[in-house]
Amino acid sequence: MREKLYVVGLGPGGLEHMTARARQVLEEAAVVVGYKTYLRHIEDVLEGKRVLASGMTKEIDRAGTAIEAALNGEVTALVSGGDAGIYAMAPVVFELLHDKGIMPGPRGLEVEAVPGVPAVAAAGALLGAPLSHDFACISLSDRLTPWEVIEKRLDAAAGADFVIALYNPKSKGRQWQLGRALQIIAAHRQAQTPVGVVRAAMRPEQELELCTLARAAEAQVDMATIVLVGNSNSFVYRGKMVTPRGYMVKYGTSKEQGQDS
Amino acid sequence: MREKLYVVGLGPGGLEHMTARARQVLEEAAVVVGYKTYLRHIEDVLEGKRVLASGMTKEIDRAGTAIEAALNGEVTALVSGGDAGIYAMAPVVFELLHDKGIMPGPRGLEVEAVPGVPAVAAAGALLGAPLSHDFACISLSDRLTPWEVIEKRLDAAAGADFVIALYNPKSKGRQWQLGRALQIIAAHRQAQTPVGVVRAAMRPEQELELCTLARAAEAQVDMATIVLVGNSNSFVYRGKMVTPRGYMVKYGTSKEQGQDS
Repeated sequence: MREKLYVVGLGPGGLEHMTARARQVLEEAAVVVGYKTYLRHIEDVLEGKRVLASGMTKEIDRAGTAIEAALNGEVTALVSGGDAGIYAMAPVVFELLHDKGIMPGPRGLEVEAVPGVPAVAAAGALLGAPLSHDFACISLSDRLTPWEVIEKRLDAAAGADFVIALYNPKSKGRQWQLGRALQIIAAHRQAQTPVGVVRAAMRPEQELELCTLARAAEAQVDMATIVLVGNSNSFVYRGKMVTPRGYMVKYGTSKEQGQDS
Repeated sequence: MREKLYVVGLGPGGLEHMTARARQVLEEAAVVVGYKTYLRHIEDVLEGKRVLASGMTKEIDRAGTAIEAALNGEVTALVSGGDAGIYAMAPVVFELLHDKGIMPGPRGLEVEAVPGVPAVAAAGALLGAPLSHDFACISLSDRLTPWEVIEKRLDAAAGADFVIALYNPKSKGRQWQLGRALQIIAAHRQAQTPVGVVRAAMRPEQELELCTLARAAEAQVDMATIVLVGNSNSFVYRGKMVTPRGYMVKYGTSKEQGQDS
């Protein structure tokens, strides 16, 4: 039997926003490894499987456990919320294989990443259409990345008018980073720039908030929150946050949305 | 009956990478509107529906057709490949509603964006785990965005060491933009930086290519291609493109992957 490890993005929320392929792979797996909060949302497909849950900061343990189970001949699925690769487990698996000299591929351990709907896309859909133009995703967690690097990225993305999606805006131990990040962005963008705050997208406890860059630091955020800062053309229309692609400017009747730049 | 317009991200490829919610919405819809190439991949769920297909550059027509059908009381799904909002149709719908003064929401036209797996996540999964750290998506199409703005974004993203996903790298009428974009990035990044090129992700005609920044201009690309440029720490391990999150540097036994910055 071929040794197989699936690294699966579950998408946001529960089973509804999971792809058919992700579901198929979970059904095929004998072992499912994941962060316990994500596993809670997919309990329905876990019956009869060996389920190995662990805490939030145990990424390397989870990846190691999954690799070990797969090398033992059990079809294994290592799951993340959102996409499998975006601030998620696929890179940890490959880092670990590389570190241990285990080959991915047919002559070593077959690893298949199954993509999922990332948190940023879920947040965008709930807010309206804020992501439609060029955008940058930046994590505010300085656990593994020096804060100076994060600041440089914030400044560059804001200066070049990217829509900016902030991942991991706050945790119990990190309280000041979001305020500082918003200050850096505000040096390049107007105080009235729309900001969308989406907590626990597509889950029962989901919360949405639309505010402005000037007020965004007061928003209720946690590790399960995405903060989306519009670009210089983003606007709010009847409760929906929209970044125009520029069609109306070029082809439409109204010019009031400004330039697509 | 409530007027309802779904704006649906189909994900990459065919039905396999579509979410359960997207499928449910397509089954519920009486009218499906979309670009004909995408509709071809989901023929199985279109039986018995009124299907309105159009050509690639007809975004406003498609959005207008879909809005009209929904306002006529037919449950309508306007579909895009990938996600519904990322270089896709959701913004065009809201731009058009705004332009025409039609209210979204319960007292106007109810619009629900159903997110899908974006092309960038599909490309990432196929290549390994290149997106794991902060990344920027930039479209090289200057049809609606001035080229100077695109150059500014490329320069900013490259200078701040973002992983960069290039959408729409080439079309029949746009041949030089990719080469120029790679030049701008190369001013900040080493010639050996890994670049992944994914054409028609998750479709039968899918093609993958791993190369370096120095050689990427020679890659075969078209409008259905995503070009992923690694950051300064991205590496290739046995055919997989990996951007480390930095766990091995902080917690692992090997230091050879460099700094997570």
